[in-house]
Amino acid sequence: SLNVASKGNSAARVYAPYTVYKGKAALSVAPILPSFTKLDSGTFRVERQGVMLLTIWPSIGERKYDWERRQRFALSATEVGSLISMGPTTSSEFFHDPSMLSSNAGQVRKSLKIKAFSDGTGYFISLGVANNILKSNEQFVVPITTAEFTVMKTACSFVLPHLMGWDRVTNQSEPVDIVG
Amino acid sequence: SLNVASKGNSAARVYAPYTVYKGKAALSVAPILPSFTKLDSGTFRVERQGVMLLTIWPSIGERKYDWERRQRFALSATEVGSLISMGPTTSSEFFHDPSMLSSNAGQVRKSLKIKAFSDGTGYFISLGVANNILKSNEQFVVPITTAEFTVMKTACSFVLPHLMGWDRVTNQSEPVDIVG
Amino acid sequence: SLNVASKGNSAARVYAPYTVYKGKAALSVAPILPSFTKLDSGTFRVERQGVMLLTIWPSIGERKYDWERRQRFALSATEVGSLISMGPTTSSEFFHDPSMLSSNAGQVRKSLKIKAFSDGTGYFISLGVANNILKSNEQFVVPITTAEFTVMKTACSFVLPHLMGWDRVTNQSEPVDIVG
Amino acid sequence: SLNVASKGNSAARVYAPYTVYKGKAALSVAPILPSFTKLDSGTFRVERQGVMLLTIWPSIGERKYDWERRQRFALSATEVGSLISMGPTTSSEFFHDPSMLSSNAGQVRKSLKIKAFSDGTGYFISLGVANNILKSNEQFVVPITTAEFTVMKTACSFVLPHLMGWDRVTNQSEPVDIVG
Repeated sequence: SLNVASKGNSAARVYAPYTVYKGKAALSVAPILPSFTKLDSGTFRVERQGVMLLTIWPSIGERKYDWERRQRFALSATEVGSLISMGPTTSSEFFHDPSMLSSNAGQVRKSLKIKAFSDGTGYFISLGVANNILKSNEQFVVPITTAEFTVMKTACSFVLPHLMGWDRVTNQSEPVDIVG
Repeated sequence: SLNVASKGNSAARVYAPYTVYKGKAALSVAPILPSFTKLDSGTFRVERQGVMLLTIWPSIGERKYDWERRQRFALSATEVGSLISMGPTTSSEFFHDPSMLSSNAGQVRKSLKIKAFSDGTGYFISLGVANNILKSNEQFVVPITTAEFTVMKTACSFVLPHLMGWDRVTNQSEPVDIVG
Repeated sequence: SLNVASKGNSAARVYAPYTVYKGKAALSVAPILPSFTKLDSGTFRVERQGVMLLTIWPSIGERKYDWERRQRFALSATEVGSLISMGPTTSSEFFHDPSMLSSNAGQVRKSLKIKAFSDGTGYFISLGVANNILKSNEQFVVPITTAEFTVMKTACSFVLPHLMGWDRVTNQSEPVDIVG
Repeated sequence: SLNVASKGNSAARVYAPYTVYKGKAALSVAPILPSFTKLDSGTFRVERQGVMLLTIWPSIGERKYDWERRQRFALSATEVGSLISMGPTTSSEFFHDPSMLSSNAGQVRKSLKIKAFSDGTGYFISLGVANNILKSNEQFVVPITTAEFTVMKTACSFVLPHLMGWDRVTNQSEPVDIVG
């Protein structure tokens, strides 16, 4: 796929979220790849880790959803590890402050909770966003089935090494390099 | 593999079903990849999700099977997730209407059932196709072993990110892009 | 990797068996890829399935092993599925006749047995080859640890879609094809 | 990625360790790929197996860590298999002598221990390095969560076939080779 670069369309992007539509909201997950910096030595280093971007947006009628009111939560590699390790009865909760380390720290608080149904047939995914500046407090809950959660876990296991940049490490020295 | 395109044989296809031959019928599974649309922005979007195509065709004598009487069932990503999450004692059932949303809706009903043997050594895969127009009602049952089901689960886990288009997402920005 | 072909070294091969050396014998496993036939339609079809080749050869002194006396057993995709699905207390046994369907059918009988240690810390892998023509009957047993078996299971899970040819299916239509 | 070689930058390297920062020390893991030798036959053979390199370096104040005092432990493929097979209550211990088979054999002894928390919520990773020549004896302990350990296990499962060189085996004969 290096040829993509040599063909001059390095900006080609593929948009392929996994989306489930439920009664009160829709939920999608999609990977965002890490970015790399080239050091003077010629080595590439991960500059920004990749994330698994989770988006929830509310239903506003039959088969209609309001994308303008979407809320997002970017799961880090370790948070993806937490999701992958969940069993049929466990729960996970993550807290993010999108303005952390800035002057707005603490003004927006996001929480994502994944909680197994009591009968073990699925999970509730709850995303809360409390914004002190806008005086808003949104709360979305999307029930997903075990089959849907298995798709997420399987796809997250596949994508995790890519979020970490490890797929690039393993691609870098083909046997043919030795010939060249 | 982009070179395939540059060599002008972008239509090159590989046919590699996993097939098991049993007493009353044969069963094969093979992935069908998603298709993509190029947006004005240059981004590619999944247009049609990929599926895992399951085909069953009946035996008509010793080591002879009638391919003309094959019936098919295309498992979606979420249905593949259901199959992957099956344990040694669980069962799954899916219902499809191939004419859904058309004027023939409800005329053909397909069902696929996967049910563990009571002794835990394998599964029955049953495909039923009731066609009101042809006044036909076909029912195939294929017993498969745990080893065969493990091949299907392992291959489905491998292929699931490809059905979703996520392998394309992760291939799109190699470090070398930054150089180019 | 298509470039390998365009560079004229399509015969480039990589030899990378996973080998364990034990008191009475050494054991290695290595994948053998499937071969493909090109149909008139331009489609490629799997001609011969890939296998996982298991080789055992006896010890003839301290850190010395006799490669000339090696015996082999080629595990099919389904047999690899059986190995992958093994738990800490299960066992598997496979029987092969390398001359099956020829006039020598039944003259050579091979069996491979994988049996968990009673304490759950590993497995015995036993390979027996009874050859009526040579009047020989070799029997090798190699004890392997859970860690070594986990390497085999993980590597077999990785390689199984390649034995089936599914990695080629998923590589065949990059988004860029649509551009080209 | 063979193009990397043909572009003359075969030395391009990607540095992407997975790092966790804890109270008393930081821990990172990163894969080191195998090296290959080209035989007269044109076949490539694994010359040196790949390893998973684990590095621990001590804290010397708030958010400050002393990289100069790092200690390393290179996990072999089989030791990675041991790590992957660990359950929520098991422990593993590995011993290395970096000067094994040299005149300094036995002078430096390294041990790596992975031990589950008694409450099952994570693991202690302990690295000890006793150096008779320097009369030193360093001992680092890093507690990691189940989520962090799951990231390591998932990434190790992904990378294991690459440490063994099996990704090169499976890349070597594309269908297109048959055309070429």
